[in-house]
Amino acid sequence: MIKVGVVGGTGYTGVELLRLLAGHPDVEVVAITSRAEAGVKVADYFPSLRGHCDLAFTDPASAPLKGCDCVFFATPNGVAMGQVRPLLDSGARIVDFSADFRLKDRAVWEKWYKASHAAPELLAEAVYGLPEINRERIRSARLVANPGCYATAIQLALLPLVETTFVDHAHLIADAKSGVSGAGRKAEVDLLFSESSDNFKAYAVKGHRHHPEILESLASLQSASGRRLGLTFVPHLVPMVRGILATVYARITADTDFQALFEARYREEPFVDVLPSGSQPETRWVRGTNQCRMAVHRPFDGDTLVVLAVEDNLVKGAAGQAVQNMNLMFGFPESRALEQIAVVP
Amino acid sequence: MIKVGVVGGTGYTGVELLRLLAGHPDVEVVAITSRAEAGVKVADYFPSLRGHCDLAFTDPASAPLKGCDCVFFATPNGVAMGQVRPLLDSGARIVDFSADFRLKDRAVWEKWYKASHAAPELLAEAVYGLPEINRERIRSARLVANPGCYATAIQLALLPLVETTFVDHAHLIADAKSGVSGAGRKAEVDLLFSESSDNFKAYAVKGHRHHPEILESLASLQSASGRRLGLTFVPHLVPMVRGILATVYARITADTDFQALFEARYREEPFVDVLPSGSQPETRWVRGTNQCRMAVHRPFDGDTLVVLAVEDNLVKGAAGQAVQNMNLMFGFPESRALEQIAVVP
Amino acid sequence: MIKVGVVGGTGYTGVELLRLLAGHPDVEVVAITSRAEAGVKVADYFPSLRGHCDLAFTDPASAPLKGCDCVFFATPNGVAMGQVRPLLDSGARIVDFSADFRLKDRAVWEKWYKASHAAPELLAEAVYGLPEINRERIRSARLVANPGCYATAIQLALLPLVETTFVDHAHLIADAKSGVSGAGRKAEVDLLFSESSDNFKAYAVKGHRHHPEILESLASLQSASGRRLGLTFVPHLVPMVRGILATVYARITADTDFQALFEARYREEPFVDVLPSGSQPETRWVRGTNQCRMAVHRPFDGDTLVVLAVEDNLVKGAAGQAVQNMNLMFGFPESRALEQIAVVP
Amino acid sequence: MIKVGVVGGTGYTGVELLRLLAGHPDVEVVAITSRAEAGVKVADYFPSLRGHCDLAFTDPASAPLKGCDCVFFATPNGVAMGQVRPLLDSGARIVDFSADFRLKDRAVWEKWYKASHAAPELLAEAVYGLPEINRERIRSARLVANPGCYATAIQLALLPLVETTFVDHAHLIADAKSGVSGAGRKAEVDLLFSESSDNFKAYAVKGHRHHPEILESLASLQSASGRRLGLTFVPHLVPMVRGILATVYARITADTDFQALFEARYREEPFVDVLPSGSQPETRWVRGTNQCRMAVHRPFDGDTLVVLAVEDNLVKGAAGQAVQNMNLMFGFPESRALEQIAVVP
Repeated sequence: MIKVGVVGGTGYTGVELLRLLAGHPDVEVVAITSRAEAGVKVADYFPSLRGHCDLAFTDPASAPLKGCDCVFFATPNGVAMGQVRPLLDSGARIVDFSADFRLKDRAVWEKWYKASHAAPELLAEAVYGLPEINRERIRSARLVANPGCYATAIQLALLPLVETTFVDHAHLIADAKSGVSGAGRKAEVDLLFSESSDNFKAYAVKGHRHHPEILESLASLQSASGRRLGLTFVPHLVPMVRGILATVYARITADTDFQALFEARYREEPFVDVLPSGSQPETRWVRGTNQCRMAVHRPFDGDTLVVLAVEDNLVKGAAGQAVQNMNLMFGFPESRALEQIAVVP
Repeated sequence: MIKVGVVGGTGYTGVELLRLLAGHPDVEVVAITSRAEAGVKVADYFPSLRGHCDLAFTDPASAPLKGCDCVFFATPNGVAMGQVRPLLDSGARIVDFSADFRLKDRAVWEKWYKASHAAPELLAEAVYGLPEINRERIRSARLVANPGCYATAIQLALLPLVETTFVDHAHLIADAKSGVSGAGRKAEVDLLFSESSDNFKAYAVKGHRHHPEILESLASLQSASGRRLGLTFVPHLVPMVRGILATVYARITADTDFQALFEARYREEPFVDVLPSGSQPETRWVRGTNQCRMAVHRPFDGDTLVVLAVEDNLVKGAAGQAVQNMNLMFGFPESRALEQIAVVP
Repeated sequence: MIKVGVVGGTGYTGVELLRLLAGHPDVEVVAITSRAEAGVKVADYFPSLRGHCDLAFTDPASAPLKGCDCVFFATPNGVAMGQVRPLLDSGARIVDFSADFRLKDRAVWEKWYKASHAAPELLAEAVYGLPEINRERIRSARLVANPGCYATAIQLALLPLVETTFVDHAHLIADAKSGVSGAGRKAEVDLLFSESSDNFKAYAVKGHRHHPEILESLASLQSASGRRLGLTFVPHLVPMVRGILATVYARITADTDFQALFEARYREEPFVDVLPSGSQPETRWVRGTNQCRMAVHRPFDGDTLVVLAVEDNLVKGAAGQAVQNMNLMFGFPESRALEQIAVVP
Repeated sequence: MIKVGVVGGTGYTGVELLRLLAGHPDVEVVAITSRAEAGVKVADYFPSLRGHCDLAFTDPASAPLKGCDCVFFATPNGVAMGQVRPLLDSGARIVDFSADFRLKDRAVWEKWYKASHAAPELLAEAVYGLPEINRERIRSARLVANPGCYATAIQLALLPLVETTFVDHAHLIADAKSGVSGAGRKAEVDLLFSESSDNFKAYAVKGHRHHPEILESLASLQSASGRRLGLTFVPHLVPMVRGILATVYARITADTDFQALFEARYREEPFVDVLPSGSQPETRWVRGTNQCRMAVHRPFDGDTLVVLAVEDNLVKGAAGQAVQNMNLMFGFPESRALEQIAVVP
């Protein structure tokens, strides 16, 4: 049984994390912080947790985080980088949901996040928390940077292609679609029901912040170093609460059995499910679960490969992957507390 | 470990039952029948169950139902009444999701369901499966008639009022709203996305089939026998998948502390949660769970009482309540496999 | 051709008003104000208006409102009362969308709106802009208080009952359901897509601000003065953008042909459509239009009457009714620019 | 004033056509056929049309279609090809919403539609009804094949690229997303609210029937004949009622100002709106209107061009384009009855 703290518990990834941790037999949550809601019982704030959580939110200043074995930062970008140092010194291990430690290249980080990095000395140590590429390093990490939701789905769809040389790495396309919860629980007009319901649009076409993290991570995996890696990534907003579907296009440059390639790559992965040939995955098939399900298509046997990958942006794309990382870090079975079945319909 | 069969596994209550049973440690599902899908793997039909169900659908004629300890009928009205007799004779115990055995009065049944009843001799024996009123009888029942989804929410909202005499029993009003899954997985134009999305309407205003079951059940509970029980019940269709909110209105005829009345009535109930005074329950607070959460209001301290009750129509309103009934029938802890936390958002 | 100004053009009722006015042949919109968006072209802010509106938002301070024949206030409560006096003095006539002038009783207004009224001397002069009760007074009014969206639907459903004595006026119930746009274009967490989609709830059960305006207006119409008028009003939030359905319940105290009563009351009304007996109106039937459609039911020929009324909260519940009022005030045909057909599906 | 008949008036494109024609001053609708609903008043079937349509559905066999100047077929594939010949002989001109006459190549048609063509002799005469490429031929056509909804959006997004040689024509990608109404008003499980709400998926990845019509039409326009035209087209289903967004990707092979290219191409088009550089069009901006709005992006000034195009699938993608074609055929102003403003929100 480990002691766990959650910094920033009032957002969507926070409440999802609490849902998952409530079912984890090896975890005791000892603190959930929120400056704005300090003193409020968590189950009053999120009545879905009535009967499953007795804690009240505590002010970050007085929360007993230093006594924790593991601290999750379910906070906006820019918070964790200012707070992890003393926690690490106290012996806590960290899983950060934000982008603060996802990039190795400080200059790229500062360009995209338009800020000076507060803990650049930790960038090298931090492990990018995608178990499908970094499982062993995660086991021993002190500081894990949990990947972005889009970044998870797109990388999983691309991994088998980037690790090999059957497609043109320089002109990859990821047309990705996300439910609205991906934008977080922020009071913004664009996220209102009346703005996003019965509507569809692309956004951040000029450049989404998950773009550099995908590029940096994939580039490190390319089979032939020095190959140019290029990705056009267009995110879209779907009028649904949860779920991401990434539709990935790649130009085939050498023939192979792509279905077999994907199946082989993910055979041992507990949370990547390569569907039978011809499948067309739906986001609801993974709603509330840590699964990423994907299908590989080659329309008309032409030279364009299409990969379809779905995940729940709040689970495999955030809180579930964080628990998966924690399980690895503390030697628990990797799937513990992550075996939910999707709620369908 | 008991052997369980599911008759009619391709509908919404069927797949929800399979989701819940997959997490039940005392249950082995040995057969899931479907005439139309016989031979198809259940996890191919419902990919959300991939990794959680190895069975294929079997034709009802060849399914090993007679060897089951418990058989669930997740079938439309009219199916179970023709099939339960030989199963009961074989020693199986039955939970029927349909309306076939919900009414004691055969004439009322035949009037509302416009058919001749195929097993009227079982109507007296069948136990109406609302644990909050029939817990002890359910424990020993061979045949349990699982209540309708509206009927569950409305009765739970009314029970404390009908068992006492603080309101006018003769003029109760239940303005109920349901997600579309309540209508089942039927290929009907009215249930199309393009018909019911971004839209709201009442339906069955002239009389909904859950009406007589509510009246018969509540009448049996009235504190003073012979009092007239009257209910105006207007169902509405909400553009959401799951969830029922029943807004119940009653005229107060004698003063009492209604909050205390409700809290006392449900203090020991594992699946009825009387919220703090002033609460306004949301259907998502119970999505995917077996909870019914309710709040009691008396606007402007006037003489009209308002009770708000939410449930997930597929769980407490169907499959979850069925598992709760099975737990009671077989001596398992009542909440086993029913402790999910709502998926929010 | 009259000159029209719009104060507060960036909200939902504002953009809806601009849509309707763009099709009005007798109107020239000369100013649309917004402090925050001053200088921005309206069609850049609302691209749906591209090709239909050449104006830019102007700062309220410099907008040529005093030269207008008619000024609409599509502003939050509390704005119009501080600004209408000089406009009236300049000869402009006003239609105010807010609650500032809806109540005659200043004390009631100040209690519900928790503020001191800035122009109490105008309360007596202001005409409540429900044409179905005040048509003649609206024609000559200088200042029209456009009714609230709920207030419009509920009053239209109740008018024939309150003007006669066939039901108990003291215990009316209005269970009303609204799309999310009724809450306005405000950056609030409760109105986020991820909070209100796939969800249903009641709100403001303790008292909604439209309550006193309904009571005051209906009380003035009661056939027998001195009868007590009582209304329990529970609003609910529907996961749809537009539309209100009010389900009204009344206890019948004297027999009559209610269908005939409603048809006779509304025979000459251009925007109230009493549907054939047995109808169940849907909100989409009036989406984007100024119609209120309603149906009258008496389930099981009992003593509870049920009236179902639908409207588009942004049209008959706001901007459309405002144009209808303007048409009356300036002698244009009452239906001008209001003959749209609902967009279905 | 011309006499118009509508064959198949009970579907979504049918009711949308009736909405548009009701506002057309030069048109008298004299017959709306439906075998199943013969005798039913159209406004009873579609109450949104109450007050705007006095006709009843008539059986196709007895409908006075031969006296019509223009007949619309709002019918499934395979109906029009069996019925247009005698109507043409009677002097009527036809706009067919189905795919029956969209392809010149009979063999391709029969392969995709898995049937023998009933009127192959008319394929050559039929004019593909995309005014942006065939305006002059439409004016004099007897038989117009109205394009598919996806086909319209995708072609409009690609036209300026295919008519020139700045991008690789052989590897175009159209990742298209449609609201559910695009699938029609069919009683199919896949189209149920509970299947498609809060969900997202790709479908027809192996090949959508609009694919050959896009290829054939675009190939005829290529600037350099003989160039290979290749298109990967993946349609997706969005949980919204109306709207298509096509995200088109093309590899740039020669530099140019793409924004200027698109603006020049569509400068004179009444229903194609090239948005300012940097725009991200939303489907609701064209809801209920005949506009196609598009934006041109070149992320990171790289060699992949991204074009975003939105339309209402039932208007510019079906009924609106049909009215536009009729206007051309009969010499009415091209925009007549097509100047609606989008209903936003």
